[in-house]
Amino acid sequence: MTTPEPCFDVAHLGHVELLTDKPEASLDFFVNVYGLTESGREGDSVYLRGFDDYEFHTLKLTAANTTGAAHIAYRCSSPQALERRVAAIEALGAGIGWTNGDLGHGPAYRFRDPDDHVFEIYYETKRYVAPPAERPALKNIAQRYHGRGVCVRRLDHLNLLAADVGAIREFLPRALGSRVTEEIVLDTGEVAACWFTVNNKSYDIAYSGDHTGTHGRFHHVTYAVDQREDVLRAADIFLENGVYIETGPHKHAIQGTFFLYVYEPAGNRVEVANAGARLIMQPDWETVRWTETERKKGQAWGLQTIKSFHTHGTPPVDGP
Amino acid sequence: MTTPEPCFDVAHLGHVELLTDKPEASLDFFVNVYGLTESGREGDSVYLRGFDDYEFHTLKLTAANTTGAAHIAYRCSSPQALERRVAAIEALGAGIGWTNGDLGHGPAYRFRDPDDHVFEIYYETKRYVAPPAERPALKNIAQRYHGRGVCVRRLDHLNLLAADVGAIREFLPRALGSRVTEEIVLDTGEVAACWFTVNNKSYDIAYSGDHTGTHGRFHHVTYAVDQREDVLRAADIFLENGVYIETGPHKHAIQGTFFLYVYEPAGNRVEVANAGARLIMQPDWETVRWTETERKKGQAWGLQTIKSFHTHGTPPVDGP
Amino acid sequence: MTTPEPCFDVAHLGHVELLTDKPEASLDFFVNVYGLTESGREGDSVYLRGFDDYEFHTLKLTAANTTGAAHIAYRCSSPQALERRVAAIEALGAGIGWTNGDLGHGPAYRFRDPDDHVFEIYYETKRYVAPPAERPALKNIAQRYHGRGVCVRRLDHLNLLAADVGAIREFLPRALGSRVTEEIVLDTGEVAACWFTVNNKSYDIAYSGDHTGTHGRFHHVTYAVDQREDVLRAADIFLENGVYIETGPHKHAIQGTFFLYVYEPAGNRVEVANAGARLIMQPDWETVRWTETERKKGQAWGLQTIKSFHTHGTPPVDGP
Amino acid sequence: MTTPEPCFDVAHLGHVELLTDKPEASLDFFVNVYGLTESGREGDSVYLRGFDDYEFHTLKLTAANTTGAAHIAYRCSSPQALERRVAAIEALGAGIGWTNGDLGHGPAYRFRDPDDHVFEIYYETKRYVAPPAERPALKNIAQRYHGRGVCVRRLDHLNLLAADVGAIREFLPRALGSRVTEEIVLDTGEVAACWFTVNNKSYDIAYSGDHTGTHGRFHHVTYAVDQREDVLRAADIFLENGVYIETGPHKHAIQGTFFLYVYEPAGNRVEVANAGARLIMQPDWETVRWTETERKKGQAWGLQTIKSFHTHGTPPVDGP
Repeated sequence: MTTPEPCFDVAHLGHVELLTDKPEASLDFFVNVYGLTESGREGDSVYLRGFDDYEFHTLKLTAANTTGAAHIAYRCSSPQALERRVAAIEALGAGIGWTNGDLGHGPAYRFRDPDDHVFEIYYETKRYVAPPAERPALKNIAQRYHGRGVCVRRLDHLNLLAADVGAIREFLPRALGSRVTEEIVLDTGEVAACWFTVNNKSYDIAYSGDHTGTHGRFHHVTYAVDQREDVLRAADIFLENGVYIETGPHKHAIQGTFFLYVYEPAGNRVEVANAGARLIMQPDWETVRWTETERKKGQAWGLQTIKSFHTHGTPPVDGP
Repeated sequence: MTTPEPCFDVAHLGHVELLTDKPEASLDFFVNVYGLTESGREGDSVYLRGFDDYEFHTLKLTAANTTGAAHIAYRCSSPQALERRVAAIEALGAGIGWTNGDLGHGPAYRFRDPDDHVFEIYYETKRYVAPPAERPALKNIAQRYHGRGVCVRRLDHLNLLAADVGAIREFLPRALGSRVTEEIVLDTGEVAACWFTVNNKSYDIAYSGDHTGTHGRFHHVTYAVDQREDVLRAADIFLENGVYIETGPHKHAIQGTFFLYVYEPAGNRVEVANAGARLIMQPDWETVRWTETERKKGQAWGLQTIKSFHTHGTPPVDGP
Repeated sequence: MTTPEPCFDVAHLGHVELLTDKPEASLDFFVNVYGLTESGREGDSVYLRGFDDYEFHTLKLTAANTTGAAHIAYRCSSPQALERRVAAIEALGAGIGWTNGDLGHGPAYRFRDPDDHVFEIYYETKRYVAPPAERPALKNIAQRYHGRGVCVRRLDHLNLLAADVGAIREFLPRALGSRVTEEIVLDTGEVAACWFTVNNKSYDIAYSGDHTGTHGRFHHVTYAVDQREDVLRAADIFLENGVYIETGPHKHAIQGTFFLYVYEPAGNRVEVANAGARLIMQPDWETVRWTETERKKGQAWGLQTIKSFHTHGTPPVDGP
Repeated sequence: MTTPEPCFDVAHLGHVELLTDKPEASLDFFVNVYGLTESGREGDSVYLRGFDDYEFHTLKLTAANTTGAAHIAYRCSSPQALERRVAAIEALGAGIGWTNGDLGHGPAYRFRDPDDHVFEIYYETKRYVAPPAERPALKNIAQRYHGRGVCVRRLDHLNLLAADVGAIREFLPRALGSRVTEEIVLDTGEVAACWFTVNNKSYDIAYSGDHTGTHGRFHHVTYAVDQREDVLRAADIFLENGVYIETGPHKHAIQGTFFLYVYEPAGNRVEVANAGARLIMQPDWETVRWTETERKKGQAWGLQTIKSFHTHGTPPVDGP
């Protein structure tokens, strides 16, 4: 009997649609402080991206009367791979159906994870074409290094809250072919948090237990910077711009990422991170399991995990 | 008619076997200055790896009466993928045949590239298991960050010389399923250099034209460090240890990697590099083509490419 | 009436003598983990220095049945300046008298600060002369960048505890000609902490209130590294070597230094720090006064000051 | 007989007045690319400073029909020290006389160095007071870290060309009380270059031989950034903004500074540099003398000194 081969149907995390009830302040944060660039707008949405994101957008910021993530999107490796994933998701009974896409990409198939977050997968995309003023000096990056604000390079990963992370741990590998690179399993056997990847990045999405029991909440979105020094510099930029710093800079024990968490003006949590040269290239990577005791040691260099990390999500919950 | 799907059969560059005619000095360099760790030895070979390389070895250093690369190895994604690649290589008429592997891995299928470099592909591998003194504080890395010398993290890529890079450009995608991420094409149409990858790294092997017309020569091996600061620190360590610095630190125009080249005592070129957060996650990445004129501008910030870059390879050539 | 001129009699902090009741473990820490180099030993003391400290030693580590600082030394600008300082200190009634110096320097005049810490000032010193194996590649640094452990560059500053910081604030400018660059003044008017300098560094000694009311205790000694990345790297080295990390890396609100605090095996607190390009070159610098409210905001990016910061000193309060 | 005491009369380099025949382009460079902030303008001059320069200005940029430095200014330690320096300079026969100062400072005494560069010394200065939009989050820095362009922290040093550097080596210590920290002496005995400081910085002014034999020319002005990473980031910013990069980033053999040289639009050379934690605190520092042979080795890690370094100065030799 042969071992099943790894799945490469999904190429990478594509974008997230974030809702904001303070659209002007949020846009100012993402463009002038965080350093994303606007590539278009339509209806209540502004399309944004990091300077080396190759697609038209990686963040769709939509004005709404609430906050949180409206949908999360992954790009497939090929049209055939997209078809295979749609079939797999339909077999799981999680499908919603096709959409026509938007300014940034073509047809997308939508589905729900077991915690009611809305996902979509697509293949046809719109590449970002830099207008003259944004053309890079070196043509192998998508846009010039503009140096505005934190000037994040590219979308890195998302973190979502879920009432039952164990159910997600079963679902995502089946739906997207994701691998579980690391996880926290409590003494009770409950999966407290779980990190997934579809490619060589050590994670592109993570789920943490929502202690409020609410469904479908968003924890944070992260863009990558090239160096840890960029994270330290970001801290000064956030400080000088009155952005609330929740915790960090510090190094995660899990995944080893150097991180910094802030809240954008509408309350959505945003991270700046650098993973160094860490990649998961091993095709038969075995999930690293952290125990409750290990987790209590805090972050890599001893910083205790901040309490709001387990309660602050968007949209906020009315009462604990 | 459908577009063929991307190939994911080969997971990553596995190791290189380097020859040295100054085995003691070379070993001292790789262990105490470059910061690799020995995991075993057998016959004339010492097996070495970076602190976060998950396999038993990524560098096999073999005493010989010459220098250069004896063979280059890639690990496949699965046993089935290995079979598919063997069939493809045999169909190309490039196969040599199976070996039983060595201390670090199981059966491997050997073949030659059009310039007579010897490659092998394998699936069964031996994971590095850290002895007690080398166990990391955080269990998601392979070995403790020992801090010795440059303390490189993991094997990153190789560069080989070839008389006809254009032939390699045709061969490697067929043999390994590699993608060509960037290339230099001269005004004559000749491919002067070419960068390949089998995964999300922007390159795992590169070929440069051998101006001496010799075949099968080695240009350099590169290990990754987590930060550009590690490259700068490496320069001081090389300086203080009398290691010949050929060029750098500087930023490559092509691929954008921050680099530093030195010669180990036997003359093999060795690089320390950091790629920042740059990855090729795009499944339909289009090769970036650099012209002769663009190449003459030098490296990213204007450093002219050093002349020895095009002539110094191992083994050395008798006469130009 | 003319403003008195600034005093330049004291050139810089010279060294500290630290006591340890675990001499072997402390020495191993300072040499192999922190990266100091031994330049000599005599009696129960080992003389140590950072790789670019120009003097024979900046840390005298003495085996004892307790911990803490035995004495703190400053080097004067000239023999004449030394005489002036001795006269000033005698006029303050704080003098102890002359010693013959030790392996590292010539005659020194000892005195006590109002909290009973022992200080000495001297001019004649012994320059470190690197033995052949430690000679730097570039002759403008004192010793080669050896790259061992954290590899700190030079002594930076000390922090002492005092029951009455306000008394120290009056005393040090008169005794050493120090300037007060920053201070924390509580709502009660009490000086909670105070930072002093005798040169262009923004501080070479700081005092914090000892909440236990004990006299003469030591808070920490700090060596400087060249980059913030060196502090981050130090954190990994401490982690892998089982060194207790108390807090950091983070950026001080006061003075803006990037810091990391650990305990050496005997319990003396040790810091690794980087001040960036910050210097106090202004001859008429006005003391920056921080209020109790401002201090409660925590460190620069919001990290709360750890509780042990105000209680952990050496020797410990209840006996050794 | 007693050794003379060190001189502390001059506190620090104050500012430089640079001439530009492309005033709009130069101002755009200094504000939007280099990251200085305008604090005022008067006549043909714009007053500029780094974000942590405490004075009203450190760069006075004046529109003219030529380029180069119109004058160089040092601030004294006290009014009395200013008087002593004026007397010393008059005794040297180098004095020009008093000016009333300008927007940035009070009365200044002007003099010429032996190569006809105009200097001034002053004590009364105008402190920069940040307008509300520029107030820092932490009150111990002069202005917020605005993050615009390279965002240099503070004026660091100047380099001037001189036909006879040996004459300068005699003059500056007598005029300003400067110390010679390092020098290059050719096999002929000629001083090829010389580095001076009046405080703990390892140099605040340097002179290099002008191979054209012209007098009074300017070589470069340097602002300090906090980290080497800021220099690397600056290189990308210059690249993306079409600024000519002459050489670097690399590490100077002499003084060990990490550097990057560019030309501002009018041709004046501008450096971005980081000195790490290097300071000269030793009161009896002995000049480090580099030989012609040592100098030929190039910079610290082997980069050859670029040829234009010895010929490009402002104003250019053949008319403006």
